[in-house]
Amino acid sequence: MAIPSAQFSLTLRVELPHESGTLSKVTAAISKVGGAIVAVDTVEAGGDGTIREITIDCESQDHRGRVIKAVQSVQEARLVETTDRTFELHRRGKIHTGLAAPLKTRDDLSMAYTPGVARVCSAIAENRQKAFKYTIKANTVAVVTDGTAVLGLGDIGPEAAMPVMEGKAMLFKEFADVDAFPIALDTKDPDKIVETVKLIAPTFGGINLEDISSPRCFEIEQRLIEELDIPIFHDDQHGTAIVVLAALMNACRLTGRNIADLSVSMAGAGAAGVACAKIMMGAGITEFVACDRFGAIHTGREDYQSGAMNAPKRWLAENTNKDRRDGSPAEVLEGTDLFCGLSGPGIITAKDLQRMNPDPFVFAMANPVPEVRPEDAAPYVRVMATGRSDYPNQINNVLAFPGIFRGVLDVRARAITEEMKIAAAEGIAATIEDDELTEDYIVPSVFNREVVTEVARAVSAEAERDGAVRLDDQTGELSLPA
Amino acid sequence: MAIPSAQFSLTLRVELPHESGTLSKVTAAISKVGGAIVAVDTVEAGGDGTIREITIDCESQDHRGRVIKAVQSVQEARLVETTDRTFELHRRGKIHTGLAAPLKTRDDLSMAYTPGVARVCSAIAENRQKAFKYTIKANTVAVVTDGTAVLGLGDIGPEAAMPVMEGKAMLFKEFADVDAFPIALDTKDPDKIVETVKLIAPTFGGINLEDISSPRCFEIEQRLIEELDIPIFHDDQHGTAIVVLAALMNACRLTGRNIADLSVSMAGAGAAGVACAKIMMGAGITEFVACDRFGAIHTGREDYQSGAMNAPKRWLAENTNKDRRDGSPAEVLEGTDLFCGLSGPGIITAKDLQRMNPDPFVFAMANPVPEVRPEDAAPYVRVMATGRSDYPNQINNVLAFPGIFRGVLDVRARAITEEMKIAAAEGIAATIEDDELTEDYIVPSVFNREVVTEVARAVSAEAERDGAVRLDDQTGELSLPA
Repeated sequence: MAIPSAQFSLTLRVELPHESGTLSKVTAAISKVGGAIVAVDTVEAGGDGTIREITIDCESQDHRGRVIKAVQSVQEARLVETTDRTFELHRRGKIHTGLAAPLKTRDDLSMAYTPGVARVCSAIAENRQKAFKYTIKANTVAVVTDGTAVLGLGDIGPEAAMPVMEGKAMLFKEFADVDAFPIALDTKDPDKIVETVKLIAPTFGGINLEDISSPRCFEIEQRLIEELDIPIFHDDQHGTAIVVLAALMNACRLTGRNIADLSVSMAGAGAAGVACAKIMMGAGITEFVACDRFGAIHTGREDYQSGAMNAPKRWLAENTNKDRRDGSPAEVLEGTDLFCGLSGPGIITAKDLQRMNPDPFVFAMANPVPEVRPEDAAPYVRVMATGRSDYPNQINNVLAFPGIFRGVLDVRARAITEEMKIAAAEGIAATIEDDELTEDYIVPSVFNREVVTEVARAVSAEAERDGAVRLDDQTGELSLPA
Repeated sequence: MAIPSAQFSLTLRVELPHESGTLSKVTAAISKVGGAIVAVDTVEAGGDGTIREITIDCESQDHRGRVIKAVQSVQEARLVETTDRTFELHRRGKIHTGLAAPLKTRDDLSMAYTPGVARVCSAIAENRQKAFKYTIKANTVAVVTDGTAVLGLGDIGPEAAMPVMEGKAMLFKEFADVDAFPIALDTKDPDKIVETVKLIAPTFGGINLEDISSPRCFEIEQRLIEELDIPIFHDDQHGTAIVVLAALMNACRLTGRNIADLSVSMAGAGAAGVACAKIMMGAGITEFVACDRFGAIHTGREDYQSGAMNAPKRWLAENTNKDRRDGSPAEVLEGTDLFCGLSGPGIITAKDLQRMNPDPFVFAMANPVPEVRPEDAAPYVRVMATGRSDYPNQINNVLAFPGIFRGVLDVRARAITEEMKIAAAEGIAATIEDDELTEDYIVPSVFNREVVTEVARAVSAEAERDGAVRLDDQTGELSLPA
């Protein structure tokens, strides 16, 4: 059942005559068709009537239409204007630029621009590392997409991907004070994507790849990691993987288990799935079976042997499922401790979960409809997580990427290593104290501001331990030209 | 003689004992070596002494050193910290991003990000023109450079060019509320520059090319104009040309002359020079002789006939100096009404100006040292302009580019036509009323906020007249999906 929500909210501007009771006729009509009134404001009380703005949460696009019709059906009311609040919020885009210093006087101009700027340019020309100190490279990340795998919408193109990239940039700024800027590329060619990102890299201190379809995303990320000396991070892979690992760490802490002892099955071998497998195995798990739509992946499969299998799945075949177990997700979860769903609804039933080991963990992360509904799974599961905000334990990337980039920018790290990803997961997990941990609280809220601090601290500490930071300016104190 | 200025200002943090007279010893020492004290602040008045922050404008880098030494020589004073204010202002860069909508609650998230954002993405996927309404494309310009011709510094590379590009982005925001973002490219190959700008174009509503060396800049701009449907503008060419034309319009208005009747000589055939020639001829001037370092350019020159001359100079050869006049800048200015200098100091003398027509105009724009000093030229010249802020009539690009992009973004223009450039010049010129015009006031101040309004209005009106605006949404009111 759909619930009225802000994503479908609208504001109606209605003119009503000066008769008592007309407003209540309108609100009654809205309520009758299930619209949830959020606010009623008086805009103008003139001679002929009063203009009211009524903000209403609806359930869906269709429901919006029924609410509008209901208001139109009130004879005394005249509907003046209909505003879709979500579209209104997107008007002219969701981010803007701002000045870090005033530009009001000639003195301001002479320091921030010509002629003063020339000395700063010269200092960077002598030592390009100073760009990390005296330009926006210090705090700026590119959010790069080609628009091929946007939300559940698929390949919608670069312009249509922009609202998501802008939203991502907002999250970077709001949660971690990272200046992120969206770059939507008008190409799907991996060579051109790699080339373009390399060529625009001087501006940026890091690159966040976003919504690039699998398996192209793996090659693009890997080549950029090899060819650039700033951190590259494909959030659809690693963001999810890091939060999954954090959830798993806390599920183990709650139940007194050791991660390395767990047996795991996974449904979905796209970008996030492969990254989840890698990070879990990096954390010590050895028993792992991944399924794609054809079933469990292993080196005995025909598409592996024929060479038809793509590179990331080949990695899964070669590094997981050593026993070459066959079967569907519903079959291979037998005898495992964690089922990790990154696929779609309906591929397993709640009853299938009975065949898992005692007190199992189920992370059913398909969006918007999970692989198995928490209500149905409850009788068979010890700890349940989903990708949704309306159930406990939401696996949400926003717990990871802001703090990770805050951490790498703070120490000017050259890369985001596997160890730094695991450190990030530890940082997320650590925000829940032992005595707070429950089955319904293994993952912190996305609005818990402590998370970004913990993640950034964990990531920068690991970068420093690893020596992945810039040697000439670890303290942030480059000596100035005399 | 150098004058102390903000570009070389520094802040000294000095600890002084609690004895009367010690501060005045320090300020006297500073004044003695010519430092101009701007401010003295008390930071801390503790047990042992007082910490003062003294801000001082200096004349040069060397002078800064002498001021610091002078303070160190005061026995009672202990210099705790020296801060270069220009470098300090550049720390972590000069622009940042900001949110155009709040992101504090789940409702905010559900409208600005998932799931609400999906409806906006879908609307743009159906009609890509909606990106001009619902994404930052509505108000965002890329400031693109390859770092090959930065200020007077030359080819200093993309990282070192960033402080200038950030300064430019500040000017866009401060003067025209245009969100500009710097993109410094790690290549000098025109093919790659064109390709990269095309591939990142979906994010932007316009492209401002900056500090790309001549003659590559002409080809790059021309190809981008042909291949993209958003405005492309190489500011080093057209920004200067537009302000020169504005100054010329006002010099003619002041002296009752007709632009089309003027005879013009020019020294310098780089990016700005060629653009100045084009815009002046577009405004009706027919008598025009341009010189490069080898003298006057025409089709009889050996390098033209051998094919060694580059494309923009070939354009000058074919379209100016029909009489094939030979000679140096000092020679060909004989009998002209305007000398336009975009070269370097010392190529003409003040006395040479005597051979110009009566009441001549001299725009000596070489920076920082003009072709001829205004003090020396004064006896021979009716109207003088330079590129410097410390003389009257400063020819400064900032009078043009903010208003031009404000104008094209306001009407979603597809291009910046020659007519729109001339309209921009008219807009700048019009900010000075007839009764305000004097020989020392033909160009408005860069801090005159009326300029951007006038330029934007003139540019968008010309775009609408020309039909260069997007037809489906001129009013800014696209109909929303039902």
